Amino acid sequence: MPGFKGLFVPGPTNMPFRIRQAMDVALEDHRAPDFPEFVRPLLADLKKIFQTTTGQVIIFPSSGTGGWESAITNTLSVGDTVLASVYGQFCYLWVELCKRFGLNVDTIEAEWGTGVPLDRYRARLEADKTHKIKAVLVTHNETATGVTSDVAAVRRILDDLKHPALLFVDGVSSIAAIDFRMDEWGVDVAVTGSQKGFMMPTGLAILCVSEKALKAAETAKLPRGFFDYKDMMKSNAQGYFPYTPAATLLRGLRASVDMLLEEGLPNVFARHHRLAGAVRAAVHAWGLTCCAAAPQWYSDTVTAVVVPKGIAANEVIKTAYNRYDLSLGGGLNKVAGKVFRIGHLGWLNEIMVLQALGGVELAMRDTGIAFEPGSGVGAAVRHLSRADESMRVAAE
Amino acid sequence: MPGFKGLFVPGPTNMPFRIRQAMDVALEDHRAPDFPEFVRPLLADLKKIFQTTTGQVIIFPSSGTGGWESAITNTLSVGDTVLASVYGQFCYLWVELCKRFGLNVDTIEAEWGTGVPLDRYRARLEADKTHKIKAVLVTHNETATGVTSDVAAVRRILDDLKHPALLFVDGVSSIAAIDFRMDEWGVDVAVTGSQKGFMMPTGLAILCVSEKALKAAETAKLPRGFFDYKDMMKSNAQGYFPYTPAATLLRGLRASVDMLLEEGLPNVFARHHRLAGAVRAAVHAWGLTCCAAAPQWYSDTVTAVVVPKGIAANEVIKTAYNRYDLSLGGGLNKVAGKVFRIGHLGWLNEIMVLQALGGVELAMRDTGIAFEPGSGVGAAVRHLSRADESMRVAAE
Amino acid sequence: MPGFKGLFVPGPTNMPFRIRQAMDVALEDHRAPDFPEFVRPLLADLKKIFQTTTGQVIIFPSSGTGGWESAITNTLSVGDTVLASVYGQFCYLWVELCKRFGLNVDTIEAEWGTGVPLDRYRARLEADKTHKIKAVLVTHNETATGVTSDVAAVRRILDDLKHPALLFVDGVSSIAAIDFRMDEWGVDVAVTGSQKGFMMPTGLAILCVSEKALKAAETAKLPRGFFDYKDMMKSNAQGYFPYTPAATLLRGLRASVDMLLEEGLPNVFARHHRLAGAVRAAVHAWGLTCCAAAPQWYSDTVTAVVVPKGIAANEVIKTAYNRYDLSLGGGLNKVAGKVFRIGHLGWLNEIMVLQALGGVELAMRDTGIAFEPGSGVGAAVRHLSRADESMRVAAE
Amino acid sequence: MPGFKGLFVPGPTNMPFRIRQAMDVALEDHRAPDFPEFVRPLLADLKKIFQTTTGQVIIFPSSGTGGWESAITNTLSVGDTVLASVYGQFCYLWVELCKRFGLNVDTIEAEWGTGVPLDRYRARLEADKTHKIKAVLVTHNETATGVTSDVAAVRRILDDLKHPALLFVDGVSSIAAIDFRMDEWGVDVAVTGSQKGFMMPTGLAILCVSEKALKAAETAKLPRGFFDYKDMMKSNAQGYFPYTPAATLLRGLRASVDMLLEEGLPNVFARHHRLAGAVRAAVHAWGLTCCAAAPQWYSDTVTAVVVPKGIAANEVIKTAYNRYDLSLGGGLNKVAGKVFRIGHLGWLNEIMVLQALGGVELAMRDTGIAFEPGSGVGAAVRHLSRADESMRVAAE
Repeated sequence: MPGFKGLFVPGPTNMPFRIRQAMDVALEDHRAPDFPEFVRPLLADLKKIFQTTTGQVIIFPSSGTGGWESAITNTLSVGDTVLASVYGQFCYLWVELCKRFGLNVDTIEAEWGTGVPLDRYRARLEADKTHKIKAVLVTHNETATGVTSDVAAVRRILDDLKHPALLFVDGVSSIAAIDFRMDEWGVDVAVTGSQKGFMMPTGLAILCVSEKALKAAETAKLPRGFFDYKDMMKSNAQGYFPYTPAATLLRGLRASVDMLLEEGLPNVFARHHRLAGAVRAAVHAWGLTCCAAAPQWYSDTVTAVVVPKGIAANEVIKTAYNRYDLSLGGGLNKVAGKVFRIGHLGWLNEIMVLQALGGVELAMRDTGIAFEPGSGVGAAVRHLSRADESMRVAAE
Repeated sequence: MPGFKGLFVPGPTNMPFRIRQAMDVALEDHRAPDFPEFVRPLLADLKKIFQTTTGQVIIFPSSGTGGWESAITNTLSVGDTVLASVYGQFCYLWVELCKRFGLNVDTIEAEWGTGVPLDRYRARLEADKTHKIKAVLVTHNETATGVTSDVAAVRRILDDLKHPALLFVDGVSSIAAIDFRMDEWGVDVAVTGSQKGFMMPTGLAILCVSEKALKAAETAKLPRGFFDYKDMMKSNAQGYFPYTPAATLLRGLRASVDMLLEEGLPNVFARHHRLAGAVRAAVHAWGLTCCAAAPQWYSDTVTAVVVPKGIAANEVIKTAYNRYDLSLGGGLNKVAGKVFRIGHLGWLNEIMVLQALGGVELAMRDTGIAFEPGSGVGAAVRHLSRADESMRVAAE
Repeated sequence: MPGFKGLFVPGPTNMPFRIRQAMDVALEDHRAPDFPEFVRPLLADLKKIFQTTTGQVIIFPSSGTGGWESAITNTLSVGDTVLASVYGQFCYLWVELCKRFGLNVDTIEAEWGTGVPLDRYRARLEADKTHKIKAVLVTHNETATGVTSDVAAVRRILDDLKHPALLFVDGVSSIAAIDFRMDEWGVDVAVTGSQKGFMMPTGLAILCVSEKALKAAETAKLPRGFFDYKDMMKSNAQGYFPYTPAATLLRGLRASVDMLLEEGLPNVFARHHRLAGAVRAAVHAWGLTCCAAAPQWYSDTVTAVVVPKGIAANEVIKTAYNRYDLSLGGGLNKVAGKVFRIGHLGWLNEIMVLQALGGVELAMRDTGIAFEPGSGVGAAVRHLSRADESMRVAAE
Repeated sequence: MPGFKGLFVPGPTNMPFRIRQAMDVALEDHRAPDFPEFVRPLLADLKKIFQTTTGQVIIFPSSGTGGWESAITNTLSVGDTVLASVYGQFCYLWVELCKRFGLNVDTIEAEWGTGVPLDRYRARLEADKTHKIKAVLVTHNETATGVTSDVAAVRRILDDLKHPALLFVDGVSSIAAIDFRMDEWGVDVAVTGSQKGFMMPTGLAILCVSEKALKAAETAKLPRGFFDYKDMMKSNAQGYFPYTPAATLLRGLRASVDMLLEEGLPNVFARHHRLAGAVRAAVHAWGLTCCAAAPQWYSDTVTAVVVPKGIAANEVIKTAYNRYDLSLGGGLNKVAGKVFRIGHLGWLNEIMVLQALGGVELAMRDTGIAFEPGSGVGAAVRHLSRADESMRVAAE
């Protein structure tokens, strides 16, 4: 069909021309004498994105799933206990992965639409007097439900209880889009991928690892090869990689980091918050609800919209895709068929959000969802217009 | 600013990735033995776009203005009379160009917002018993006002009167987007550029020339070199060009023609009509009016929107550009400051139109134009939604 | 420095514009309804590259090293014995990886410059009456020394001895460039990467897995998550992936496979053989020798050139890179400082080979290696010129 | 055929990735408020390439031929006399163009292989006591024969004789590659195109016009529209263009100018001289001769190689193209069939020159030209190797 496709899944995101161009180059010799002049500043600048000075950035040619795996295999041994909670599909998958590697997962089931259950985490950790729990897992932004959790609060619980467990955070759909603070929050392994806040193609797992996690690596007995942190760090220290790196993607990552730092992280986060607000205003104007159970859980990168009873959410998604070249995210697992998801992260501005909302209106209308055409976009226009800025700021 | 820019001026238009890629190649030898295998089918297929079998397609590394000039210099001599009418800026410029070349231009001033004045053309041609008028100029789609004129009717007048004048058509913002019929309408020189319906960068003047026009070239005395049709045709016949062609743009043109023919010209025209209807529905829902004075003049490629008294149209345009990365067209000459223009041609679909309309709503709200936010997009959603298709078709 | 860089390392290789363009696209929704229409034919056509009908193609967003790891973890258990030989750096690294995963590696050290030691493999396997050896490892093309081994002969030994061990082949620098036959040779896991014969950026591990290997996966106890074959196959069967795929690279792979199949695998192999012959002719004309100890080991994708005593090979490489923008490969491990490597695989033709050889002549001359300027290129011209074709064919 | 094509025609030239990328962007609004911020510095920096402070840079979406035409139509009137000499095809074409526009061309036929005939120019100008000659034409670098002429000497003659004729220079294949000095040489109109020294696609005529030429424009009576300098300058002064500019090419030109200025014009010229020397060394080593009749005429951007009697030069060219994907230039007009041309300008380095020479050796060998394979490349290696630098410098 003619016309550009609208990509509003929660990753991959829209890719800036600058990043696309940075990767649109001839292949290169990754053992060239001047390759370290490229690698070292890249790793150094990535630290700024993680808001860390003491952490170690690690990049694998892989995806977020590989990042999850590396967190486990580099720091734990078979039979170790980890504390985790499941409030969405990506929480669930990480728990399953832990089980594959022989870990003993203490899993707390939480309502989908809520976030990390702080009280139950506290209870479990308090009860763990012998410190059998070696690691605590938190999904910072659950992409399946559009829920952001309070990582800092988990750190405070660990600190309160003086519990030595490692803190692992899945920041795949938050980092570089929602405020994430490696050092301040005492995160031990933070995992993200290239295709979300970094606005890039899939293909890189980007991690940040604390000194404490690296210490744990010395005694961790799970086997690891491709995902070994120490091999990577040893080569990185020379400005190279232990095996052929995905240099093309690294060139794109350089452009991505430049763009994020030029915009300024606080501005990046504020932009995501403002645009997410417009999406939520539209959802409410349509008379629909967010899957996120309360404003405290609202995600600034993805909104899962609950469709009215009797409507198949997948029909909205299919109609949007097949008729209007608009990609929306589907419901997964427990919320399959009940929600469609609007990704609103990455290289995004006001008119892109209005495009997504307009397209959703078309698809909802075709699918028979009752709403006033234009109401969602109108609410978003009110939210985003600078004319209303003072009013909006006052009301928040 | 982050996010893609929205390009909704009436040319250049949005460029398909396929065309961009077709031009994103190494430079090439335009005298290579196999270059004719590329050139000949391209020229042949372009005839289909002009809906001609007898016309000759000519491509200059130039712009539409160069195309206008070539129409004059290849067929006329100093002192020849041409009949023209001015109902917009691009009509005006072509007339001025004719004067530069020593032609005697019989210019009819028409109201801006209307199209070619058929009755007055008939009167002039009828009065011209000695056939002093050598050529009649028509701007098929006046880009400045969003007005489409009836070229076929001009042909009928000439035929009725058995007047031998050449018929020159500026189809810069119509051809490949609005129905244009070289042979059926008896057009002698049709002029367009690469950056409109062809969805390409600026840089090519694309023309179609009738046998009658080529006959006129034999006696035409205006000097010409770069823009000489015969030099071009002589080289083209061998599959080459008389001077270095803009081969990169020609590669893009190949992709463009492929896309247009794959979609099918009737579908291309219908798509433009449907999307233009959505824009006009929005304009009316906002309580504003089109510069085009009546539905018969409505252009399917560009809509000039008249702003309320007391509002500077340029403020809407500046606000859209500076705050929201949305490019709209400005008013020119007589309508400067009174209209802003929304280009809706080329590589365009429903969600792109909704983006433009959403962005216009943002800019109008900031600029203080009174309207109900969402009303325009809502009207467009109603117009475009397939749910309403049967109703809409019935109403038209 | 002005001018294109010459990339003649043995991977990444020179990337065709067509592949570059295929990846130079907007990001896409990997859960779109029509994504399977892209995935399934791709996997099917990749089988042709592996020359298999019964094998299963698996693609990971990873590198060859990840492919090695997957071969082990999907089919073996801690303590299993594997037979391997080390005749170069990449043989060595795979063995080390096996050790990381707790395998018992029976390692045969062979002279660097030779290939897989068939007699010693036969002896070991013959002695293994209890079939403790679960897998046999062969590096088809040792990239460090420019040596190609006889995989078919290893299969014949296994068959002769009716030994049930799995046969794992590292085909990273052979597959899609040198004849490789999954089915005919009875290979159980074949590993390659995107950045060699596939002419693509690094970032994909591309594997082919036999039914026998998949059977072994059912009882293999090594832990695996990211690299699990069954998870991948289950999702692939639906046309999707178990986690976000590197869709951009997959688009490039589609173009790569198209190009390989359009050229025809036998023609691809013949081209590599012919161009490699030119490189070897040059080496001999310079009065130098190949690291490969005898013609039977000559690799058609990479030639390691032994520099004269007293010359540091790295000086040639540095000079080539720093002065002439020519990337050559360095010596690794045992041959470090003794050889430089010319990669001659992928998107390659005669004039590219002459460029590499000309550049090597410049660098050797600057570095003080004694040779007649032009002698190597002259020998290559003689080898490649069609004028000499009949003579050359007769002499071979 | 697999592998990159070698482009060694004398324009278009090899295009740097940086320029290709600069043009690989979305289309843009050429009337945007910030467009002047792009246009003005570009025009200012182009002055540096022309080595002028008082000249006016003019860019047309056109080609060099359009630039020639503009020089005439903006400054002269029908019947004006111009002095020109023909020593190659591009000299010839400019003369023909002058005739088309009704100029009286005093044409001096010179031997092809020599350059502008200074003595005869002096004689004609000296004889022209009434200053009927309004303009003197010089082709700085005759692309058809590989001959560079002495523009400064023509200026000295005019100055000696106090002759007020305008000095027009065709610098299409010299400017930005061979030293050209607008102000110092008192050039009145300098014409070049984007596809030579600027390393870009064809599509822009780039001119520099002196104050004297602009003064002449005030009384020049030849008609002009598309190519009118004053219209262009008037719009340029506002940072815009009188008609839609080829903005994509202008973005490429920005990158081109940046690259030229970053390298430094003297370095650009020195590089071309050094690489051209290698080509000439090869020609002599092959036992062949240059079309340029003496070293004083040697062009640093293109070498026309005279083939031995009995050999059809076009066979070399066809063989190079069809068998080896190497594009060479053909002989034109008087030297058709007698020479093939090697373009060596633009984005060029040592290994690219060796590639061209190696490819020429292949093609010459296939075509039956007797020479020692490797001799040309060997001579070039000697010329280019830094090892020989001191010797070479001493010998020159």
